[in-house]
Amino acid sequence: MTRRDLLRVIGLSAGGAAMYQAMSSLGLAAESPYKGTPKLQGAPHGASVLILGAGLAGMVAAYELRQAGYRVQLLEYNPRPGGRNWTLRGGDTYTEMGGYTQHCRFDRGLYFNPGPWRIPYHHRGLLDYCKKLGVPLEPFVQINHNAYLHGAKAFGGKPQRYRAINADYRGHVAELLAKATQQGKLDAQVSKDDQAQLLESLRGWGALDDKYAYAKGPDVSNRRGYDKPPGGGLSARPIDSQPLQLHDVLDSRLWRSLTEGEIYEFQTTLFQPVGGMGRIGEAFGRELKGLIHYNAKVTAIQQDERGVTASYVDARHPGAVRQARADWCICTIPLSILSQIPINVGAPMAAAIGAVPYAATVKVGLQFKRRFWEEDEDIYGGLTATDLPINTISYPSNDFNSRGKGVLLGAYIWGLDAYEFTAMSPDERIRRAVEYGSQIHPQYKTEFDNGVAVAWHRSPFTMGCFASWSEALRAKHYDNLCQIDRRIALAGEHVSYLPAWQEGAVTSALDAVERLHQRVMAGVAG
Amino acid sequence: MTRRDLLRVIGLSAGGAAMYQAMSSLGLAAESPYKGTPKLQGAPHGASVLILGAGLAGMVAAYELRQAGYRVQLLEYNPRPGGRNWTLRGGDTYTEMGGYTQHCRFDRGLYFNPGPWRIPYHHRGLLDYCKKLGVPLEPFVQINHNAYLHGAKAFGGKPQRYRAINADYRGHVAELLAKATQQGKLDAQVSKDDQAQLLESLRGWGALDDKYAYAKGPDVSNRRGYDKPPGGGLSARPIDSQPLQLHDVLDSRLWRSLTEGEIYEFQTTLFQPVGGMGRIGEAFGRELKGLIHYNAKVTAIQQDERGVTASYVDARHPGAVRQARADWCICTIPLSILSQIPINVGAPMAAAIGAVPYAATVKVGLQFKRRFWEEDEDIYGGLTATDLPINTISYPSNDFNSRGKGVLLGAYIWGLDAYEFTAMSPDERIRRAVEYGSQIHPQYKTEFDNGVAVAWHRSPFTMGCFASWSEALRAKHYDNLCQIDRRIALAGEHVSYLPAWQEGAVTSALDAVERLHQRVMAGVAG
Repeated sequence: MTRRDLLRVIGLSAGGAAMYQAMSSLGLAAESPYKGTPKLQGAPHGASVLILGAGLAGMVAAYELRQAGYRVQLLEYNPRPGGRNWTLRGGDTYTEMGGYTQHCRFDRGLYFNPGPWRIPYHHRGLLDYCKKLGVPLEPFVQINHNAYLHGAKAFGGKPQRYRAINADYRGHVAELLAKATQQGKLDAQVSKDDQAQLLESLRGWGALDDKYAYAKGPDVSNRRGYDKPPGGGLSARPIDSQPLQLHDVLDSRLWRSLTEGEIYEFQTTLFQPVGGMGRIGEAFGRELKGLIHYNAKVTAIQQDERGVTASYVDARHPGAVRQARADWCICTIPLSILSQIPINVGAPMAAAIGAVPYAATVKVGLQFKRRFWEEDEDIYGGLTATDLPINTISYPSNDFNSRGKGVLLGAYIWGLDAYEFTAMSPDERIRRAVEYGSQIHPQYKTEFDNGVAVAWHRSPFTMGCFASWSEALRAKHYDNLCQIDRRIALAGEHVSYLPAWQEGAVTSALDAVERLHQRVMAGVAG
Repeated sequence: MTRRDLLRVIGLSAGGAAMYQAMSSLGLAAESPYKGTPKLQGAPHGASVLILGAGLAGMVAAYELRQAGYRVQLLEYNPRPGGRNWTLRGGDTYTEMGGYTQHCRFDRGLYFNPGPWRIPYHHRGLLDYCKKLGVPLEPFVQINHNAYLHGAKAFGGKPQRYRAINADYRGHVAELLAKATQQGKLDAQVSKDDQAQLLESLRGWGALDDKYAYAKGPDVSNRRGYDKPPGGGLSARPIDSQPLQLHDVLDSRLWRSLTEGEIYEFQTTLFQPVGGMGRIGEAFGRELKGLIHYNAKVTAIQQDERGVTASYVDARHPGAVRQARADWCICTIPLSILSQIPINVGAPMAAAIGAVPYAATVKVGLQFKRRFWEEDEDIYGGLTATDLPINTISYPSNDFNSRGKGVLLGAYIWGLDAYEFTAMSPDERIRRAVEYGSQIHPQYKTEFDNGVAVAWHRSPFTMGCFASWSEALRAKHYDNLCQIDRRIALAGEHVSYLPAWQEGAVTSALDAVERLHQRVMAGVAG
């Protein structure tokens, strides 16, 4: 019996609090709300579930319900599984709302993830399905000390290495606090013993010298980098670099990007599937082969006392309306689209479906003739942050140190800039991404090859990137969205506290199928 | 013409300062002392070089000198290329000084690097040879926010997650400095405008609340982790964790390990060759096939006006003394061993050879029956730091999320502890590593499978781990070690400002072959 099995037994027999206590004593406390896949069983003979959407939520639901003994069918708008779990490769075609069609011309082996692109170490549901489906993972590099922080007005627009700003900000903070401590200015708050430990810790943490100054020298260069780093032989003596002054660091406002790798979802270790995020959706699609009806655009969802009927048309050639029916329905259609489809649910769920706006984001993938970021600038993976509209440049976390072409994430655009870019043609978005990016990498102008640009508000299968919950909206509508409405349960990242994350889709689906199964079994028992 | 070629032309025609200026204006300034491989050419017909040692330094020298037209031969003590670039796999055998023989019993595909195990992004020489030799790289995870910091006396010996100590230390530092700022205590040092920016920056950087307090709440949980992290569905509301108090963080002294990922050599992005560090040495060995004489233990090195002769015996069955001779010699034998071999060099080099002690380190590789660190604890790669003698546990940076067995670095021991472990039998070192490690991972006791332990002071081919230069030693002896002594030049990590690093070996070899070639060409011209 594994520890997880043991916990499940405790949970089943004594309830959640007992299980939590047991987890605590086993040292697993509070690490994840994910308790393993639910291992449902005993579905009534012939019981059926109709699942709308073959994204991760829909496919997780199908995987578990099928295992529990339900007859399962899925309707999917796209000609492929995965939904936003999606990788564009050479030869792929994508038509957005408004009619623009893009033909991806990347070289073989290169790719771009328009949607999710990283998996945090604590997204255990998604990681478990990767293991079950045999999807190999590799590390995704988020923080790269040698990538850039860039402000159009900071340091004359010259990008700064992350390591330099990071070391200098920390060093000056440590120096200021150490000096305030020495001058007795913390006496009211911090005991003398603690002050001594604080001083010792600040010296190492901030790379301060014997006098608690953050000043040019080997220890500081060993954080921020050297003017000439150490090497071998006769001419290899290192030359120290000169730290920036506190005023210049503060004034640059580049410190705004120093916390990115500290945030729970972006801490190491992050992963990406080998070959593109879409490998997960593709693997689920193979697993559920025969159960997914592709190119099915749902036009109405109607439940009655005995079951649920979805009307749909062929997404490519809308014509005859067809129908699919089952005893129960799990609907994973994004609210942006579901709110436009007739569905007979009660007032609370209906209000919730209509209430949540979707975020607009734009991502641009750019293929270059060579990996100049590695060859010229020693940047291997990671992100450059900028206050230009492109916001982010992300360097590939795979095929490091290889020859030949490479594909960058050339823009990851949010907010008002995203609306502006959404209004442009794909070619214009790409042109702008290259133009802005060349302020950081002058090589862009000669090395650019081709690109693709996905504006999520023009995606016909989501009409937005992810559910943009506010605190107020969540307080009012979230539980109503989660509650099963007679025979219909919703799932997807929009039914989670993890908007935009695949783990939100996975865990919301697991939560929904567990509750649905309970309801079915209760009905059978009753 | 590439930028690198352009720079070489400028360097050749106008000297180093002009090249440096040109690099500056091309934005490459000061990034590396490594200027690309030297592209030597025009060796005099028949000129020959004897290279002692087929570690990285010796093989880099052989690679470049052969390309320049020299006749090259290498003598190597071991039956394999690479020297300290070395990976132990199942089926390998290793006999240390003192006679202990270990038979590695790891499962297929699992391995352990007794020597170097990580490659920083700025070690461009080594990275270039990996590219030339077709050695694929993958990221090495150094910092893992979900790995542990452990002190035997801290928090009752219970390991703490890196993310929690990191967030709490930073948060308290930010709070203390923000409050000192608000109270006017920095008025003498920091302008009012800068104080305003400092306060704003500290709030985001330290996850402080509106009142500049580091206090329990969503923002703090989003750094240190949650009691229950957010998920999907009805029961998924996150529960915040309680930060540690400043006194407890300081008193634990776990802050000593918070800077590891900030140090120049350990910053992201780090690499490891796919399949083990030894892949580099193996690839060099294939490249230099036929030039390396293995199992050759050098017993004397003698130079005269016309060339250099090395005497050697069979390392397995010492008997007849043989000789190898060439016009010139590059000797990469570690000083710990070279100092015991008769060699007729001048007094300055002789003194340098005898002066430098070698560090003792011990590494232990442990195979476990399952990857419990991933399965139970969500730890994927990275290091756990402890004040126990094992010092470090490092989790594999490959085969993430896979089923089956795994090999940990179970100990990386330095200083006095290393001497103590060196004196033990390999079995005893392994037993201790398992015993200490089980204080951090209780699973050790049931999951341990087998192990190997390498104590570098007992390595017959290095008698130590790396040259342990002090400032004083370097001032007195370093240049004398680098200078070519008539027909003999030294190379290796010991002839660099990068002790213990493979890049020191690579760049010292490049520096030596360039100077040697210049000397040869000057002799021809004269």
